[in-house]
Amino acid sequence: MLDAFKTKLNSIEPIKQELLDKAQKHLDFLTKPPGSLGRLEEIAARYCAIHETQYPAIHKKAIYTFAADHGITEEGVSAFPSSVTPQMVLNFIGGGAAVNVLARTVNATVKVVDIGVDHDFEKVKGLIHKKVRNGSGNFLKEDAMSENELLQALETGFSLALDAKKNNTDLIGTGDMGIGNTTPSSAIYSALLNLPVQTTTGKGTGIDNKALEHKVKVIQDALEFHKNELSDPYSVLQKVGGLEIAGICGLILGAASVRIPVIVDGFISGAAACVAMQMNSQVKDYLFFSHLSAEQGHQAVMQAMDISPLLSLDMRLGEGTGAAIAMGLFDAAINIYNEMATFASAGVDGKND
Amino acid sequence: MLDAFKTKLNSIEPIKQELLDKAQKHLDFLTKPPGSLGRLEEIAARYCAIHETQYPAIHKKAIYTFAADHGITEEGVSAFPSSVTPQMVLNFIGGGAAVNVLARTVNATVKVVDIGVDHDFEKVKGLIHKKVRNGSGNFLKEDAMSENELLQALETGFSLALDAKKNNTDLIGTGDMGIGNTTPSSAIYSALLNLPVQTTTGKGTGIDNKALEHKVKVIQDALEFHKNELSDPYSVLQKVGGLEIAGICGLILGAASVRIPVIVDGFISGAAACVAMQMNSQVKDYLFFSHLSAEQGHQAVMQAMDISPLLSLDMRLGEGTGAAIAMGLFDAAINIYNEMATFASAGVDGKND
Repeated sequence: MLDAFKTKLNSIEPIKQELLDKAQKHLDFLTKPPGSLGRLEEIAARYCAIHETQYPAIHKKAIYTFAADHGITEEGVSAFPSSVTPQMVLNFIGGGAAVNVLARTVNATVKVVDIGVDHDFEKVKGLIHKKVRNGSGNFLKEDAMSENELLQALETGFSLALDAKKNNTDLIGTGDMGIGNTTPSSAIYSALLNLPVQTTTGKGTGIDNKALEHKVKVIQDALEFHKNELSDPYSVLQKVGGLEIAGICGLILGAASVRIPVIVDGFISGAAACVAMQMNSQVKDYLFFSHLSAEQGHQAVMQAMDISPLLSLDMRLGEGTGAAIAMGLFDAAINIYNEMATFASAGVDGKND
Repeated sequence: MLDAFKTKLNSIEPIKQELLDKAQKHLDFLTKPPGSLGRLEEIAARYCAIHETQYPAIHKKAIYTFAADHGITEEGVSAFPSSVTPQMVLNFIGGGAAVNVLARTVNATVKVVDIGVDHDFEKVKGLIHKKVRNGSGNFLKEDAMSENELLQALETGFSLALDAKKNNTDLIGTGDMGIGNTTPSSAIYSALLNLPVQTTTGKGTGIDNKALEHKVKVIQDALEFHKNELSDPYSVLQKVGGLEIAGICGLILGAASVRIPVIVDGFISGAAACVAMQMNSQVKDYLFFSHLSAEQGHQAVMQAMDISPLLSLDMRLGEGTGAAIAMGLFDAAINIYNEMATFASAGVDGKND
């Protein structure tokens, strides 16, 4: 069933070292010691290489916030009730959530996708209606979703990236909303990175120590329940994932296939990226990891994936808030690339011999 | 001679805990788990407390880039020739340097101050002409500056902060330009924080390992030469400092005296902040440290001062580039404070009991 989707991923190509080198060479002509703008230079060079250009620009930025509910909340793994998921979706539509504010700050659009919220939004405007089902199954007892539902969620994200390309969006951020979704994220990280559940699991929106112990136990039991069915990233996502995580995963893969750089938000989006990178290893070239979340476990999983996030601001909100903040760094980096004087143009001497 | 200046510092008051608490209370009403925006919340709360307002706004941002030359460059401590200092000043005036680009990205103005460049700029427009002398003395053999010159440099920075207040500037960033200025910065850190010179000294704009050994030796010898005259922050700044460092120090103190938050750039501005905090301990309430520089030693001195910089982007350029990048976080934080919906206004449920 997934074969057609897997075939599409063959179109994802690694970025070209030659283009990275060319961009770095330009950066080295600018009036600063070579490399002294650190990660801004890394962002600028890779942005150029992804877009295959020496004249980079950021015309349109969009953050895709995928929302879904989680059957696993029945097990008491979250500090907030599931009713908050649809309420926050409406808050996104109304422009009052953190991701809206931070996106406006950097002139990005927020695209809100209902991919699996357990609520009937009817035809509410401003929402991208792509509901696969009303919340995932309680993966302690059943599959989070069927293979067909997984495919639908992946295809939804993938298609949105293709639409973004048609729409001249040149920078995408990922985001999530879903009460309970740190639980499937930790399950995914543990399953795909072979890390103990204690290492990958934290307090999410704010449970106490006792509830954290319980959450760890739930995830351990769930991984035990599905242990013979976690052989590849697709089955992990299907058995213990979530619909918004699958949507983000599809978006990431789709973006890479049409050469749009993706800024990955925090803990939940990171789980989607982890799955995507195991589905196709080239995709990493297109990803920028926005921030190290305060969620316990994020540092360990980032290390396991050999990733250094750009920021570390003790944030743990999700929604795409980390991606939005990181977009400001992209504006800075691309402006540096385009607007700085060169040693020659400014008449500045170079290094001593 | 410095008594009148020292008296002015008595006007620096600690910020009020009550105002911090009030701002945090507002942040806790917003539609996000409490504290989940991490350092953005810290920025917003302290910004409110410094400005003594519950309705924060950022009307005008300015980065003050102080430029000076250093007699110590005679000892071969830098990778670039001193000619670069005036060349870069002209680059700042022309708008082509990194700090100009990054300041434009966040709608900040760059104010360039000649406080001690060894070059006659005549009446070049756009430069703030406050030259105290043509470069500091070679502090391996003599004082970096006289007590009177120190006073002039401190007063220059202090006055610029008062002017900024009159001009409705509500957010100040610091910046520096001065070939050779990591050397006095390391000397200051070692003298004031009792850290070994090896710990506080790095490669600056890019010297090799052998030159680094030599630079360490020069600083050690200089501290030995002045060892009986390094009893307080004023004498340290005078004997082994630099004119731009003294100017930044004065700016920081002046800003605190009129309640303007200051974003401290990287390694050199950090040395000025280190001096300022030893001149008056209250000043720390007004300071935000923008980034951890890639300059070796910055991490150690930040730890010694118990400071966690906001960003860590492997930057090591100075000029105010780190401060400019951090200003984007302030826009984000203040927008969050002002624009987010509350749980009540958005109809979002709170935590489970």
